[in-house]
Amino acid sequence: VRLDDTDDGFGHAHLPWGSCLLPGADAPALCTRVGDRVVDVAGAARAGLVPAWLAGPSVDVLLARRAADWGSARVAVHQLVVGDVPDRLVHDLADVVELLPFTVADYVDFYASEAHATNVGRLFRPDDDPLPAHWKHLPMGYHGRSGTVVVSSTDVVRPHGIRGADDVGPSERLDVELELGWVVGGPPTRLGRPVPIDAVEDHVLGVLLLDDWSARDLQAFEYRPLGPFLGKSFATSVAAWVTPMEALQDARVAPPAQRDPVPPDHLQGVADFGLDLDLELALSTPRMRAQGLHPHVVSRANAGRGLYWTIAQQLAHLTSNGATLRPGDLGGTGTISEVGEASAGSLLELSHDGSVPLELPTGERRTFLEDGDEAVLRGRSTDGSVTLAPVVGRVAPRA
Amino acid sequence: VRLDDTDDGFGHAHLPWGSCLLPGADAPALCTRVGDRVVDVAGAARAGLVPAWLAGPSVDVLLARRAADWGSARVAVHQLVVGDVPDRLVHDLADVVELLPFTVADYVDFYASEAHATNVGRLFRPDDDPLPAHWKHLPMGYHGRSGTVVVSSTDVVRPHGIRGADDVGPSERLDVELELGWVVGGPPTRLGRPVPIDAVEDHVLGVLLLDDWSARDLQAFEYRPLGPFLGKSFATSVAAWVTPMEALQDARVAPPAQRDPVPPDHLQGVADFGLDLDLELALSTPRMRAQGLHPHVVSRANAGRGLYWTIAQQLAHLTSNGATLRPGDLGGTGTISEVGEASAGSLLELSHDGSVPLELPTGERRTFLEDGDEAVLRGRSTDGSVTLAPVVGRVAPRA
Repeated sequence: VRLDDTDDGFGHAHLPWGSCLLPGADAPALCTRVGDRVVDVAGAARAGLVPAWLAGPSVDVLLARRAADWGSARVAVHQLVVGDVPDRLVHDLADVVELLPFTVADYVDFYASEAHATNVGRLFRPDDDPLPAHWKHLPMGYHGRSGTVVVSSTDVVRPHGIRGADDVGPSERLDVELELGWVVGGPPTRLGRPVPIDAVEDHVLGVLLLDDWSARDLQAFEYRPLGPFLGKSFATSVAAWVTPMEALQDARVAPPAQRDPVPPDHLQGVADFGLDLDLELALSTPRMRAQGLHPHVVSRANAGRGLYWTIAQQLAHLTSNGATLRPGDLGGTGTISEVGEASAGSLLELSHDGSVPLELPTGERRTFLEDGDEAVLRGRSTDGSVTLAPVVGRVAPRA
Repeated sequence: VRLDDTDDGFGHAHLPWGSCLLPGADAPALCTRVGDRVVDVAGAARAGLVPAWLAGPSVDVLLARRAADWGSARVAVHQLVVGDVPDRLVHDLADVVELLPFTVADYVDFYASEAHATNVGRLFRPDDDPLPAHWKHLPMGYHGRSGTVVVSSTDVVRPHGIRGADDVGPSERLDVELELGWVVGGPPTRLGRPVPIDAVEDHVLGVLLLDDWSARDLQAFEYRPLGPFLGKSFATSVAAWVTPMEALQDARVAPPAQRDPVPPDHLQGVADFGLDLDLELALSTPRMRAQGLHPHVVSRANAGRGLYWTIAQQLAHLTSNGATLRPGDLGGTGTISEVGEASAGSLLELSHDGSVPLELPTGERRTFLEDGDEAVLRGRSTDGSVTLAPVVGRVAPRA
């Protein structure tokens, strides 16, 4: 079968990596996609059409190899998809089950968007400076729960917890966070040996959209002084497809100027870059779906403009104390917001802490998420050449 | 060979689980120990002397099974070691390499000792109430880096980082934290289904000593508002042997009274318990070792008296929002301190934030750790019947 190039951002120049359960298969397979067609890369490897080591269940087989192998795998898969692909290796996206694309080792979430950190500071700590005192000295981050990272389309069960003193129950302030995730591969690094910022391409296979679901009431009650815990750990959704860094060469832009203060040496790269990706957050409610309405876009933000700290800076900082990287480590940028209305990546910000409801096409209003609501994250390079696979999550009540 | 019962706390009633590289072997083996003799449990399984499923490299094979199997495995291994054990299954502890006993999934560190939280609050936030406002409403915790959990005897490379504005370099305030870790096993739980507090014994295989190394200067600069990150993530040391909860039946004591406030329902167990374990922190310096001196005990604390929140409460709280457990999840209690001098589990507390040096037998003084210093954690049930395997770590400069 011929897989013609497409203009939906999943054309021959993208070739994201994923893990799918294919029709009739009893084990997952490493796959790529062209448009809405899924190509069985593991099957192609077993048939000798691409390198044999790609015959695995997931992106884990790539993450276990060096970056040079990611490139050669990409070349081989490109040659496969531009030729005549055996029928049995091609499936409709609608016929496969998209799985978590890789096994998550450690998950670290950063707080790298200045507009977001400022918005949140203003709401959570109204008596202090909105930006935490040391925010421009280092990319702040914390470890999240890797065991609850789930793939797009997994229902998110509303968390219960301590909303205040003598107040336990389901979260009433369930929120989303629109983020970019970055996926670490390559041999494990050595304890005590930081990764230099300019080595980012040896260690980051690619990026994907990430929804860092957040229960604002639980978070606000628990977070001092140890940071986010149960307000975040109930679920983090990632897209089913990892977009290779190589596919985003044309989306690179200059990183933001950082002068006050100038960051320490280990955070200054000679070729650092931002990513010119337009992101959006959309919501749908059960009533909207019953009326056949598409998810309604409530916010748009650009990753290049929204992020003060780059992915390379996040990676370098993470290892600057000597901590190791392992294949499967997942970074999140933190919520990506820009300054201005309708350009923040969380409902906390968009609703001004619940005080200004968003209007939906049905006339419904939302501050935070209600059961049955669905949040959709989408992203695309501004030139339209690469679409990031979406993250979709629907809120379910606890059983 | 006959393995007589011992009175060193590693007798027939203890039987901890570990993973060792045995002499002449090319792969690790699940082991237990009696005194200073290591028994090759995996080899015994292959020989049909204990259940076949114990023929694995590490405690992972136990963690993958239900709690009932932990009990039957313990009975079988007990029968083995009280009989005539084949020579080839027994090795001297000095001849084996002790490895990380299990594969760490997620690692969560709590802050469960009231004396510790009070001491730290007084030092880090002198203008506020020493105990964080909501500390008695819930067991506070945060996720740590599971990829840098290392086994006892692994050198700890001094972390570098941002010690202050325009001040980057090796940590000058490198500290230890004396903790108990608890190890999760059993089938993964389901998203959105909290684990009830009284089910703790179905989910916790055992405990082990844990040293949550901390760089106080990096921690102080980075921790607001997201909590500990690089100040902790460079290394966490655990003992090489997991002490089964079953071996600590006689060490159970009533948990502390919790009345102001009474905790929420999910933190109230009908049979909750503390552990009557005497713990100690000892230091040795290169000069002490050159003079043949043993590590010098600088602090003693009892886990039962030192912990306000029990292990069962920590576990229940961790899942109360619907987060899952996976085999290999590791909890830490947080530093265990009691009120009073020489009874705190960190140098931060013992040295009053570096202002009161500790005196060592050589006449040397220490506030925080210097290169070459070794920290030793030890623990024992107060009746002397069970000794926890020690955690030893020596500070190395960055290469």
